[in-house]
Amino acid sequence: MPLMTADEYKAKLDDGRVVYYKGERIKNVAKDPNLSACVNTMAVDYEMAHDPKYKDLALVEDPELGELVSRYYYKPKNADDLIKAYELIVTSTAISDGYIPLAHDIGADALNAISITAHLSGNQDYVDRIENFRKYMKREDVSACAAVTDVKGHRMLRPSDPAQLHPDYYVRVVDKNSKGIVVRGAKVHITGASYCQEILAIPCRQMVEQDADYAVAFAIQPNTKGITQVVRPFRSSLSPIEFPNNRPVRMHTDSLIVFDDVLIPWERVFLCGEWKLAATCVYNFALLHRRTGCAYRVPMSEHLLGLGKAIADYNGITKAPHVREKLTDLVIYVETLKSLSKAACYEYVIHGDMAVPNPVTTNIAKYHFAHNYHDVVKIIEDLSGGLLVTAPTYKDYQLPELHDYIDKYLSANKKVSTENRLRMFDIVRRMTSADLETICLHGEGSPMAERMTIWMEASKLMEDCKRIVEEMAGIKHQ
Amino acid sequence: MPLMTADEYKAKLDDGRVVYYKGERIKNVAKDPNLSACVNTMAVDYEMAHDPKYKDLALVEDPELGELVSRYYYKPKNADDLIKAYELIVTSTAISDGYIPLAHDIGADALNAISITAHLSGNQDYVDRIENFRKYMKREDVSACAAVTDVKGHRMLRPSDPAQLHPDYYVRVVDKNSKGIVVRGAKVHITGASYCQEILAIPCRQMVEQDADYAVAFAIQPNTKGITQVVRPFRSSLSPIEFPNNRPVRMHTDSLIVFDDVLIPWERVFLCGEWKLAATCVYNFALLHRRTGCAYRVPMSEHLLGLGKAIADYNGITKAPHVREKLTDLVIYVETLKSLSKAACYEYVIHGDMAVPNPVTTNIAKYHFAHNYHDVVKIIEDLSGGLLVTAPTYKDYQLPELHDYIDKYLSANKKVSTENRLRMFDIVRRMTSADLETICLHGEGSPMAERMTIWMEASKLMEDCKRIVEEMAGIKHQ
Amino acid sequence: MPLMTADEYKAKLDDGRVVYYKGERIKNVAKDPNLSACVNTMAVDYEMAHDPKYKDLALVEDPELGELVSRYYYKPKNADDLIKAYELIVTSTAISDGYIPLAHDIGADALNAISITAHLSGNQDYVDRIENFRKYMKREDVSACAAVTDVKGHRMLRPSDPAQLHPDYYVRVVDKNSKGIVVRGAKVHITGASYCQEILAIPCRQMVEQDADYAVAFAIQPNTKGITQVVRPFRSSLSPIEFPNNRPVRMHTDSLIVFDDVLIPWERVFLCGEWKLAATCVYNFALLHRRTGCAYRVPMSEHLLGLGKAIADYNGITKAPHVREKLTDLVIYVETLKSLSKAACYEYVIHGDMAVPNPVTTNIAKYHFAHNYHDVVKIIEDLSGGLLVTAPTYKDYQLPELHDYIDKYLSANKKVSTENRLRMFDIVRRMTSADLETICLHGEGSPMAERMTIWMEASKLMEDCKRIVEEMAGIKHQ
Amino acid sequence: MPLMTADEYKAKLDDGRVVYYKGERIKNVAKDPNLSACVNTMAVDYEMAHDPKYKDLALVEDPELGELVSRYYYKPKNADDLIKAYELIVTSTAISDGYIPLAHDIGADALNAISITAHLSGNQDYVDRIENFRKYMKREDVSACAAVTDVKGHRMLRPSDPAQLHPDYYVRVVDKNSKGIVVRGAKVHITGASYCQEILAIPCRQMVEQDADYAVAFAIQPNTKGITQVVRPFRSSLSPIEFPNNRPVRMHTDSLIVFDDVLIPWERVFLCGEWKLAATCVYNFALLHRRTGCAYRVPMSEHLLGLGKAIADYNGITKAPHVREKLTDLVIYVETLKSLSKAACYEYVIHGDMAVPNPVTTNIAKYHFAHNYHDVVKIIEDLSGGLLVTAPTYKDYQLPELHDYIDKYLSANKKVSTENRLRMFDIVRRMTSADLETICLHGEGSPMAERMTIWMEASKLMEDCKRIVEEMAGIKHQ
Repeated sequence: MPLMTADEYKAKLDDGRVVYYKGERIKNVAKDPNLSACVNTMAVDYEMAHDPKYKDLALVEDPELGELVSRYYYKPKNADDLIKAYELIVTSTAISDGYIPLAHDIGADALNAISITAHLSGNQDYVDRIENFRKYMKREDVSACAAVTDVKGHRMLRPSDPAQLHPDYYVRVVDKNSKGIVVRGAKVHITGASYCQEILAIPCRQMVEQDADYAVAFAIQPNTKGITQVVRPFRSSLSPIEFPNNRPVRMHTDSLIVFDDVLIPWERVFLCGEWKLAATCVYNFALLHRRTGCAYRVPMSEHLLGLGKAIADYNGITKAPHVREKLTDLVIYVETLKSLSKAACYEYVIHGDMAVPNPVTTNIAKYHFAHNYHDVVKIIEDLSGGLLVTAPTYKDYQLPELHDYIDKYLSANKKVSTENRLRMFDIVRRMTSADLETICLHGEGSPMAERMTIWMEASKLMEDCKRIVEEMAGIKHQ
Repeated sequence: MPLMTADEYKAKLDDGRVVYYKGERIKNVAKDPNLSACVNTMAVDYEMAHDPKYKDLALVEDPELGELVSRYYYKPKNADDLIKAYELIVTSTAISDGYIPLAHDIGADALNAISITAHLSGNQDYVDRIENFRKYMKREDVSACAAVTDVKGHRMLRPSDPAQLHPDYYVRVVDKNSKGIVVRGAKVHITGASYCQEILAIPCRQMVEQDADYAVAFAIQPNTKGITQVVRPFRSSLSPIEFPNNRPVRMHTDSLIVFDDVLIPWERVFLCGEWKLAATCVYNFALLHRRTGCAYRVPMSEHLLGLGKAIADYNGITKAPHVREKLTDLVIYVETLKSLSKAACYEYVIHGDMAVPNPVTTNIAKYHFAHNYHDVVKIIEDLSGGLLVTAPTYKDYQLPELHDYIDKYLSANKKVSTENRLRMFDIVRRMTSADLETICLHGEGSPMAERMTIWMEASKLMEDCKRIVEEMAGIKHQ
Repeated sequence: MPLMTADEYKAKLDDGRVVYYKGERIKNVAKDPNLSACVNTMAVDYEMAHDPKYKDLALVEDPELGELVSRYYYKPKNADDLIKAYELIVTSTAISDGYIPLAHDIGADALNAISITAHLSGNQDYVDRIENFRKYMKREDVSACAAVTDVKGHRMLRPSDPAQLHPDYYVRVVDKNSKGIVVRGAKVHITGASYCQEILAIPCRQMVEQDADYAVAFAIQPNTKGITQVVRPFRSSLSPIEFPNNRPVRMHTDSLIVFDDVLIPWERVFLCGEWKLAATCVYNFALLHRRTGCAYRVPMSEHLLGLGKAIADYNGITKAPHVREKLTDLVIYVETLKSLSKAACYEYVIHGDMAVPNPVTTNIAKYHFAHNYHDVVKIIEDLSGGLLVTAPTYKDYQLPELHDYIDKYLSANKKVSTENRLRMFDIVRRMTSADLETICLHGEGSPMAERMTIWMEASKLMEDCKRIVEEMAGIKHQ
Repeated sequence: MPLMTADEYKAKLDDGRVVYYKGERIKNVAKDPNLSACVNTMAVDYEMAHDPKYKDLALVEDPELGELVSRYYYKPKNADDLIKAYELIVTSTAISDGYIPLAHDIGADALNAISITAHLSGNQDYVDRIENFRKYMKREDVSACAAVTDVKGHRMLRPSDPAQLHPDYYVRVVDKNSKGIVVRGAKVHITGASYCQEILAIPCRQMVEQDADYAVAFAIQPNTKGITQVVRPFRSSLSPIEFPNNRPVRMHTDSLIVFDDVLIPWERVFLCGEWKLAATCVYNFALLHRRTGCAYRVPMSEHLLGLGKAIADYNGITKAPHVREKLTDLVIYVETLKSLSKAACYEYVIHGDMAVPNPVTTNIAKYHFAHNYHDVVKIIEDLSGGLLVTAPTYKDYQLPELHDYIDKYLSANKKVSTENRLRMFDIVRRMTSADLETICLHGEGSPMAERMTIWMEASKLMEDCKRIVEEMAGIKHQ
């Protein structure tokens, strides 16, 4: 069976699914002016599989099916498999301007987590169901998302705690019958759910015996009766005040998914009441998914480094010592992330029947990325200067009355046109949401300006203190 | 002579000034749907002066004029004057939801810097001119801004360096005649310039002898021939997807001001060629203006602390130990800023004929604010959780098909309605520009989730290392 | 009654107290070759009171007694009193090369905390006892310490928890009779206990009803039967391999005090069973004592700044940009501590019948000092360079075979003799305990050396990343 | 030819070398009571080579000689070679309680750097000389050190700058004759120089043409005429107040080496005037040597993690949330170092004829270690508590009058004897030089105590700020 094309993927999305965006029902996500940016981003995965340049990375010969399948749906066995998967995520994200396409990735993380859990459960039914499901996903080249995080209600209370306002904050089984189970509840932050073909739902936390009804994992199609999605607002095109750009806008968006008594057929149920395994399932998902995160953030981080270097060059300040230090910090940030991500593959461990990246190293890599991200943004905003938020817009630049003024006065470096400098501010602004932060940095003078003043103003203090310790050291004043 | 009212202030703005916003000429800034938000913010200064509750803080009996004038235009003489000025800024900013009104403040900083410079110059003409100008500002209760930062061109080159692409990056004197001087160049980031009555321009850096033409300070009205302003884009109203709010939207905006051979009458010229005094002037402005910054950021910082505490409470997580630590960090941030700002007043020094806040302490206070701001934002985003960027909007919440779902599933703390939680996310989002940063923090699990995993996964490593040092310490294994 | 002289203070110490140092009983602490360094440090308080230069700062006219008493024993009433007390601590610590003399200070903190607690207790007996005791301390100019921290046993268990190995980890009342109470237990880290005249003991934590026996506060003389002290090891003289120095060595040391069924007369009992007041007492002590800490660390911090500036100058590196940044960080550290400490006085609050420094600001000041101290040490070690730990010693320098070699090769800055550079290393070493830390910083090249290599090696990476974002921004390659 | 034994190595050291320690000439370093601790540490390398357990790691079959030689002297060709070398350093350092033996390691780094430089120089003489020298080192299993850092004089001046006080701060060629070259100058921080058999000297910086005389690399034996060493002071045994321990004390020490017109035979000269190659040589040495540093600090860091975990357990505080966070930080520190160090091997590059670890990653690894070391020390001191510096000593503990008191009162955790707790304090103290830093952390209460007070005291402030933003958000007070 041939692998799906991007067009086939898009065509399948017109299936009656219930999706709302900014208070309006979307008819067909693939043709919606906003959602289509996300759909096109996801389609990159399918385009790569048909592109001779990326085929070897994107696909792998499946030993079971004897045909090429998405590398994402292949079970890794060793460091080399993990490194290749890492490189696939890095490459596809680089192609999509910093957005991982996601057609198979998160779905695969859920699939593999369920698979590991099934093998550990000792329940052959579960093993069979998930392996059949994997076969279907490989054969049909299905796009899938993972629905993990429940809305939770009060975060210090367990799912089944009677102190919760109602029992439905975490998705739970409310009925069982011969056809399957009926689930109720809501999941949030589900990236790609509104434009994929399968939702794989798993628990989001460890559970105790009273939570047994909440220990449920399953797969379901987004157009199933009872499923409603509300999509987060996002930027799907450049603003008219930004410089135009032929490049497609890449984007993803997340859903709040409400499960209002949705029937799940038994063959799609992978966990149902085994509360001890809830933790196993989500733990493995988190591990695999954080590996994903560390990989796709490599190109993102390289973009951030690129922004810093470009804007420093464009502003003509790269030779200032403090600028060099800040750019060096960006290099350390990027290269540490890469080293940790790769080391996690080389030092892999075996979970169930799969090689998974080293849990400690993967979590440190993800923590490194997130924990230091605001410092990276701060550096870029610092290097950009106040013009990042006060520079005239494309609309001003196009206006004949203003064009020459702007062209003359906003140039900085002989080698860079004013237009290019303004374009660079546009993209920095898009990638850092810079407004208030930049004002706080640069208003009344940059942090470096204050440091220079402190240095000058404190010269007497420093000399006085030096004299005191000289006396203490038995040194005569010269 | 009576002090100006808010309405009088607004009426004066319809004076033919040339102001562009997003590529369009603004007819009357006071009536423009966008700019009026800024105008109304500036008007708060005039409203306070007529409000019995704030009159004593906003006004002061002027010894020279024998009448009440804006406290901003009064020369401080001691710690008490400085503390009162600090409190005026804090109070007016608190009234304006975190935006200092700015009708007199920055203008006064420039006025005082020029005045100190004139007194140090030994040039009685300059002293007379600036003191006359101060008298006019006090009497007419003029709103004024300070135009300091030049566009600079290549930032490592001096104003007069022939390697600059053209000689006009810094504002300079291109001609002198019997009426006055003619200036050319451009200034950026000039807050309030498009909706005040006077622009006070001063140099933005120290200079050498070759830069003498650039050593120029003057006052000019915004509707003078040859002055064109381009205003930065800003948010002037709530978005339709945010919950409505009766409270006026507070805002300021900055201008790029082009001086295209503008004639400045001699009585408005305060520095003209005395290159050694350029540094004196800007140094004193920076000092006074950073004091302003430290003061108005006190209410801003308190808002940030409030956001952190509110969203933690609303999410029901305040009792988690790591949440308590993060909120404590916010308290330390706010209180350190307040202590440094006040200490700068108590430990004042005398410059020329004025008491100015302590230069070292003021700069440390400003640096503290800016240097740590991103960490504060990070904490608020961390406490908010992913819903900050994925929660449904007001439009969704109003839709009958979705209202009950959202109301049911997005509640968290029994004591807080879902609507209020969503409103709080709205304001956090407005005050932190949170999108990408929040995703980077919370995508694939929050930093705390990774830390917990690292802790669990590393238990064997920790025990192994412990055993090694026990052996080294001569401790027998129990 | 005349104030005590330093000699009188020393003479009183020969009272039979039981004190051990490195496993040996000390006969007379005032004459012991080690302990006498501490005794002489404490004596500085008495010397100051008799020195016309410091008398006004050290003493205050007592309204009750109508005579001059130590300022420490006077109850502060307002900001000015608190600022003067702050200045007394700063000055005496500066005189003693960074060691606060401590004859009255910590004792006064305990005295005042007990006094506040007594006033809040509503128990007039307690009020009378502590006020009488204060009168005695003022009149006799008594040197006193505060015994607060109990040895605690298992730190997660309460004093009375049966899971503790024994009930005596916290000092408790084991008996009461007509003469007084009998106490048992041990206190640690009691600075000055072995060379003062009174020990004021208070609880170290909040308590619950079961802990009532542990809620005990009292005063006792160190030579009372049943009291044994073990003193921590310390450096009481320069090492023979350091350059000799005429300046007296300043030092303090702490005791482990064992109370082995010690009888406390009733008139010296200030709390006995009122478990709710244990927290009040220690809370107020902690507040006052942290104020003390913030004050005496001001000169200490100035010494650290002086070390940094001196060694940078001596090494000839002050003009390197990264050195300037590091010294600026030291200035920020010192000046922030000073501003916070003073702001805590200006923004005081009233506890019981006394003005106390602002609790939030005081704790932030103390936290600032401690939290950032290691960074300060790191900077000094960084600026010192590896010679800090590898430079030849005074013994080598004195040796004729080596003297000229060392003199020739270890000079660095024309204006500084080799001897002075070596002396400066000596004092930096004494004040930073620098060995392993310095090796870790400088071994295989300083952190700056690595940063420079990273910068050079990453140039291609930076250009590649820049090119990518230029493409994304729609910028054609030039 | 058989590999050298530890005894043979020691015997060779009695060769008349001129070494001073604390102002005294050492007769035979191998038998000196202080230096012998270092000699024994270096001897571990020889012991490992004869130990069947480590032989495979320590030795490698040399293709050229056809016999087993030290792995250090073998040229790495690929990632696997680099990983094995990394493991050899890690293992030998673990065996020696955190001290890398160093018999071959730094010497090999210099040997390889010279070899790479020779191959790049195009000078076959240099290639032949260094390859012959490598053969000698392999065959004789020579112990060697690298003499790199010159004393430098004024650090902002070049070696040949006439503004230097004299021209001999950097080692230079002062004469050449038929036998060889004559060198003069001094090198500092030369670890192992006083107890190895060969000194390999190379330049320590890049040079310009005027510095040509300083561009010199050579090998020389420590007992050569004109060489004088002054050794840094170090701890060579446990103090009598520490608990005794059978384990050998491991240690290294550094020399100041004075070259007073030392003749270097031509066959031992590897660079002489080629100033452009000075940078190449030191750059490669720095890279290889930093790799060494990253490797041997892995066990050191594991010891630090072990200390933290052990003392937290011994104090009974591991379950406190802030303690868990601090230990997690230690884990992140250790594991990041390991990941970076290994990633540097996997991502190796080729320099000359050798595989060398990735330069960017290696430098980041070294920077990570050094930059964060003080924070690690701070955590350990924080977890240890004040007893780290105030606990009674072994001498006190042995004294019958004190033993039972100490045993009773200094116990904390039922599972840990008081003796073992005191032993753990001993080793923490040895490994952190903790005195002043610990006092600064814990004096007047730990940083956590201040944070808890700030949290409690700021409750009203937090509620006030929350109320303000609720109003701003349009939220009615409940």
